[in-house]
Amino acid sequence: MLPKILFRLSLNFVFACIAVVCYLWHEMLDVNLTLAPFSLLGVAIAIFLGFRNNASYARFTEARLLWGNLLITERSLLREVKSLMPDPAEQARYFTSLLIAFTYCLKHQLRKTDMRIDVDRLLAPSERNSVLNSHSPCNTLLLKMGMWLGEQRRLGRISDISFHSIDSNLNHLSSILGGCERISNTPIPFAYSLIVHRTVYLFCALLPFALVSDLHYLTPLVSVFISYTFISLDSLAEELEDPFGMAPNDLPLNAISATIEINLREMIEDDEKPIPMKPDHHCLLS
Amino acid sequence: MLPKILFRLSLNFVFACIAVVCYLWHEMLDVNLTLAPFSLLGVAIAIFLGFRNNASYARFTEARLLWGNLLITERSLLREVKSLMPDPAEQARYFTSLLIAFTYCLKHQLRKTDMRIDVDRLLAPSERNSVLNSHSPCNTLLLKMGMWLGEQRRLGRISDISFHSIDSNLNHLSSILGGCERISNTPIPFAYSLIVHRTVYLFCALLPFALVSDLHYLTPLVSVFISYTFISLDSLAEELEDPFGMAPNDLPLNAISATIEINLREMIEDDEKPIPMKPDHHCLLS
Amino acid sequence: MLPKILFRLSLNFVFACIAVVCYLWHEMLDVNLTLAPFSLLGVAIAIFLGFRNNASYARFTEARLLWGNLLITERSLLREVKSLMPDPAEQARYFTSLLIAFTYCLKHQLRKTDMRIDVDRLLAPSERNSVLNSHSPCNTLLLKMGMWLGEQRRLGRISDISFHSIDSNLNHLSSILGGCERISNTPIPFAYSLIVHRTVYLFCALLPFALVSDLHYLTPLVSVFISYTFISLDSLAEELEDPFGMAPNDLPLNAISATIEINLREMIEDDEKPIPMKPDHHCLLS
Amino acid sequence: MLPKILFRLSLNFVFACIAVVCYLWHEMLDVNLTLAPFSLLGVAIAIFLGFRNNASYARFTEARLLWGNLLITERSLLREVKSLMPDPAEQARYFTSLLIAFTYCLKHQLRKTDMRIDVDRLLAPSERNSVLNSHSPCNTLLLKMGMWLGEQRRLGRISDISFHSIDSNLNHLSSILGGCERISNTPIPFAYSLIVHRTVYLFCALLPFALVSDLHYLTPLVSVFISYTFISLDSLAEELEDPFGMAPNDLPLNAISATIEINLREMIEDDEKPIPMKPDHHCLLS
Amino acid sequence: MLPKILFRLSLNFVFACIAVVCYLWHEMLDVNLTLAPFSLLGVAIAIFLGFRNNASYARFTEARLLWGNLLITERSLLREVKSLMPDPAEQARYFTSLLIAFTYCLKHQLRKTDMRIDVDRLLAPSERNSVLNSHSPCNTLLLKMGMWLGEQRRLGRISDISFHSIDSNLNHLSSILGGCERISNTPIPFAYSLIVHRTVYLFCALLPFALVSDLHYLTPLVSVFISYTFISLDSLAEELEDPFGMAPNDLPLNAISATIEINLREMIEDDEKPIPMKPDHHCLLS
Repeated sequence: MLPKILFRLSLNFVFACIAVVCYLWHEMLDVNLTLAPFSLLGVAIAIFLGFRNNASYARFTEARLLWGNLLITERSLLREVKSLMPDPAEQARYFTSLLIAFTYCLKHQLRKTDMRIDVDRLLAPSERNSVLNSHSPCNTLLLKMGMWLGEQRRLGRISDISFHSIDSNLNHLSSILGGCERISNTPIPFAYSLIVHRTVYLFCALLPFALVSDLHYLTPLVSVFISYTFISLDSLAEELEDPFGMAPNDLPLNAISATIEINLREMIEDDEKPIPMKPDHHCLLS
Repeated sequence: MLPKILFRLSLNFVFACIAVVCYLWHEMLDVNLTLAPFSLLGVAIAIFLGFRNNASYARFTEARLLWGNLLITERSLLREVKSLMPDPAEQARYFTSLLIAFTYCLKHQLRKTDMRIDVDRLLAPSERNSVLNSHSPCNTLLLKMGMWLGEQRRLGRISDISFHSIDSNLNHLSSILGGCERISNTPIPFAYSLIVHRTVYLFCALLPFALVSDLHYLTPLVSVFISYTFISLDSLAEELEDPFGMAPNDLPLNAISATIEINLREMIEDDEKPIPMKPDHHCLLS
Repeated sequence: MLPKILFRLSLNFVFACIAVVCYLWHEMLDVNLTLAPFSLLGVAIAIFLGFRNNASYARFTEARLLWGNLLITERSLLREVKSLMPDPAEQARYFTSLLIAFTYCLKHQLRKTDMRIDVDRLLAPSERNSVLNSHSPCNTLLLKMGMWLGEQRRLGRISDISFHSIDSNLNHLSSILGGCERISNTPIPFAYSLIVHRTVYLFCALLPFALVSDLHYLTPLVSVFISYTFISLDSLAEELEDPFGMAPNDLPLNAISATIEINLREMIEDDEKPIPMKPDHHCLLS
Repeated sequence: MLPKILFRLSLNFVFACIAVVCYLWHEMLDVNLTLAPFSLLGVAIAIFLGFRNNASYARFTEARLLWGNLLITERSLLREVKSLMPDPAEQARYFTSLLIAFTYCLKHQLRKTDMRIDVDRLLAPSERNSVLNSHSPCNTLLLKMGMWLGEQRRLGRISDISFHSIDSNLNHLSSILGGCERISNTPIPFAYSLIVHRTVYLFCALLPFALVSDLHYLTPLVSVFISYTFISLDSLAEELEDPFGMAPNDLPLNAISATIEINLREMIEDDEKPIPMKPDHHCLLS
Repeated sequence: MLPKILFRLSLNFVFACIAVVCYLWHEMLDVNLTLAPFSLLGVAIAIFLGFRNNASYARFTEARLLWGNLLITERSLLREVKSLMPDPAEQARYFTSLLIAFTYCLKHQLRKTDMRIDVDRLLAPSERNSVLNSHSPCNTLLLKMGMWLGEQRRLGRISDISFHSIDSNLNHLSSILGGCERISNTPIPFAYSLIVHRTVYLFCALLPFALVSDLHYLTPLVSVFISYTFISLDSLAEELEDPFGMAPNDLPLNAISATIEINLREMIEDDEKPIPMKPDHHCLLS
């Protein structure tokens, strides 16, 4: 986040220096740009910025909740399959691969990255194409799970009630998928970001001219400090608005996906687990 | 949104110019319209505007959530029908057409547009009239789904438990319908909008007269800037209050309906899919 | 809402005039009632008023949600009864009359109006008394629905599973009833309203005396404007606090009840529908 | 609430008088305690106080919701038992006494009052001891309901599905119990109350010294008014924090318990109903 | 909490003293560091701090809710097992030990303490290893419960419907586990804490230099008071952010775990209950 902000703050610094230099001309005009209107505006902007931060953070929190629920639901699904199937070991393996593929496909879909490698790694060749060519690969995987479950029921391996108990967890997966798509496809109304953005920048650009009559040589210091508070919160709100991105404060989807895979593989006693991801030296996961 | 705001801001600009011109007379009166009471009022208005923005944005968010749930629930319904029916291909086709018709009818009902074209396209001639003449077409479609499902159960094609599992998703559709009707029929209490609206405009109209004694020739600049912050947020709140409208920041119901249709048709391997909608050059969908 | 506010604002106008007149004596005292303490207090009051508005609006929203859910749940109940019963036409008619009676009784209970007319219109003579004499008529109606449903199950007309599926929607009705009773019986803690109320009025009464030293003859104008903002929001919060009342900004329970009756009667193809209510010339429904 | 506040406000009045008297010495010092830093602090404190009020009010609201759900769930439970049991009159009577005992025990547990009288009144002698000696009497009553229900199922009086339908409402009772225990056992983090409390009092104590240079003889009036706003909201937040207490603004658990008992007894046509409680002359219920 | 804050406040006190001492040099410079820009900044920081406090407190509240639900769900699970099993006494004992082990393992996992002692105390030797060596011991315990339940169903001790009723409570346990892991693994975006933290400290460090021109010798007093308000709320937000920690204001997981164990053991009439924990002399539980 810093480089983007640094640039804006240096701009603000330059403005403040100009304000100090221009102060001589200032005094000749009969104009007295006091802090009072900026104080009023500053508080109003802080309130609106607080509102926008709330909205962005709520998106971040909901996105995290959905991925938390993904882990929960997949573990529950596999637990149910294992405790209900007459011969769980073999059947659970195929179902687990669908669950893991669902996780990775969702990740790739949200980040708009290529899902081919993970699909190849997890699915049988006969199933890859229908997933990769689909308009919504995750939904196709869900349909596959449903068809497999219907097949098991038709073969008498699970009872009617068991079918619906597991199926209701598939509905949860469907909700998670739809929730992620909703967050990803519907940004905060563009006008909000624009209005808050514009007013924050204009406010910070004009601020030094209002501060200079009181602060003289201290103007750059105080101006950059106030601007830092406003601009950094504006930038962060922008970053959190798309929680599925790959910026440092976004969700660590790679790490969560790996955790899900490790958990599921452990449940079917599969030793080919991926290595858990460690945070980097900034304590961040990708 | 801009034209509406532009007009209001130019009005404010004119007021500010009048304030500058009148300043000579000002000084002769023993009146000193300082910024202090406006500062107090400005912060209070910002707080109330923040509250109204919250309420409007909550409506927008809930409306989006309901349409997200529509996609989720219809996909789940179709998945369940496909995995439970003995001969899914044929039966799912009729049910799918009801689901898609429900989507488009809901869109037309909320936007108060004519639903005839979509109903003609999706339903058999024998069914069109009962839908079009109904007081609540979407509810009639839901009843049709329920009756069809009851018929399948009576014919022994689905078990009792399967019936109720699918039926509980019909209840979800019913909730979505009722939720959309609620948002559409119950605006934010009229008095709120009115009070906030009025105070914002009066505040912006009086502001230049309070600024002029300090700022002189800079009054129009600062006055328009402060007014922009308040008026644009007020306008946006007004726009988001009715999220089903057709203004640029409203929900892209056309695009969401098309996505739902594409998803459902793909699930029954129907190739007559509509073309997904692309955002226009303002990144907006209709 | 206006008359109540108008009176309070004229009072404020009178105070402001007194302040202007008294200003001569003011100056003789060594007292300087500046705006600064009022500014501090005004912002604090705005924050607390914002909080109270939030609480009142949340009650209004929840009440609207409950009545929205009433429509949703009654439509779902009737759809289920129609799709499950072997001979729906006749049996649904009795059940529908109970549902509609429940709606009107709930409305009358919340508004403390006489429910006799609607009960007479909707229920058979043999059933009227037990409802009208009950401590909680709505709960008695719910119990009747439950007993009727239990009867159908005992007669073998619906299966065990169908019974519980419909019964869970009766539980929803029970939640809606309880939710409405809760909102209606538990106001926002009285002390809140009192504290905010008192401080708003005292603040508005003292305000002109603080404004007069700067504004002189403009005092009444600015004072009434600021008071309008605070007093109107306080009055609105008071009105929304009891969303089931009959003030203009309260919920249009008459219109919603009529809509529910129309919807349910249409579902059983009953032509005795009431006429939908039209908004009056203030765009308000009763 | 008033006595506690009155004492604090008179203290504030005394401070203000001291400030007026000391003003002569004030002026000799080269110190100028203006309102500006207090204005900044006052707004900050108002924001934090608003936050604490929100948290307290949320606890109050949740507690009320839980008791509303208690009424809802117990009515639903009894309705289900009555519509499912072959010979409801007799069996429902025992179950009803457990439900009513659960209500009163929960009330006594939350208010830390003696539950012996109500237990004696409602339960058979053989059952009293196990309830009264239990670490958690309400949970013991829930277990008794579960065991009774399991007994009915074993005797073939209710089917498997009916058992689980009723049992899921017992799970709701369990949630309500756990929710009340949570609110009662986990106060708002102590540090919050402490920080806000301390700053509010220190702020009010220092305020007169900042007001006196402008207001002279009016200092006590304005100081007490501002202090009233802050102190009364702080006190109310403190009161609402423990919604199960017996202060005037706490929840009227006695009245709600009586309402539940009346409702349940009416459902089983039992005439031994308690008398509904009437609000006292302050419109408050205990 | 105090030592950490005390250090920061003494630093602030030192800064304030420096400001008083330096004031002579101040006056020689043509710089006038007034409070106005700090007032603007202070309100903005208070708004952002309020936002961060909200976010931290929401995490604390959710964490408490999850542990409350843990108690509720485990009591419900045991009640169901006891009322459904033909020979509850023996079978419930093993299931109870798994439930209690789940509680303690969750506590140790969240606090990153050693779970060996509690696992040894609660589980049979044959089961300890698979739990202790697992990547997610709690999930392994859940799987064990599911497998045991499946076993009971296969042996015909519980019916299909009973299985799914209990299994849906296992899904709740799974949600609680996933929710706790989510809170524990996903802090509030680091940048938020950082930005608010930095601005609070810089603000408090610069504050005395702005106060000194008005307050002279009173600067340290007022500066430390204002700093106390901001710094203590910042510190508390930091503490609540990780509600599973062992700081005084964190959740008393030891006490809650003991309560759960006591409740469950009482339900199976096991006398080996642990002693309930008493709050220490600061009214805090660990």
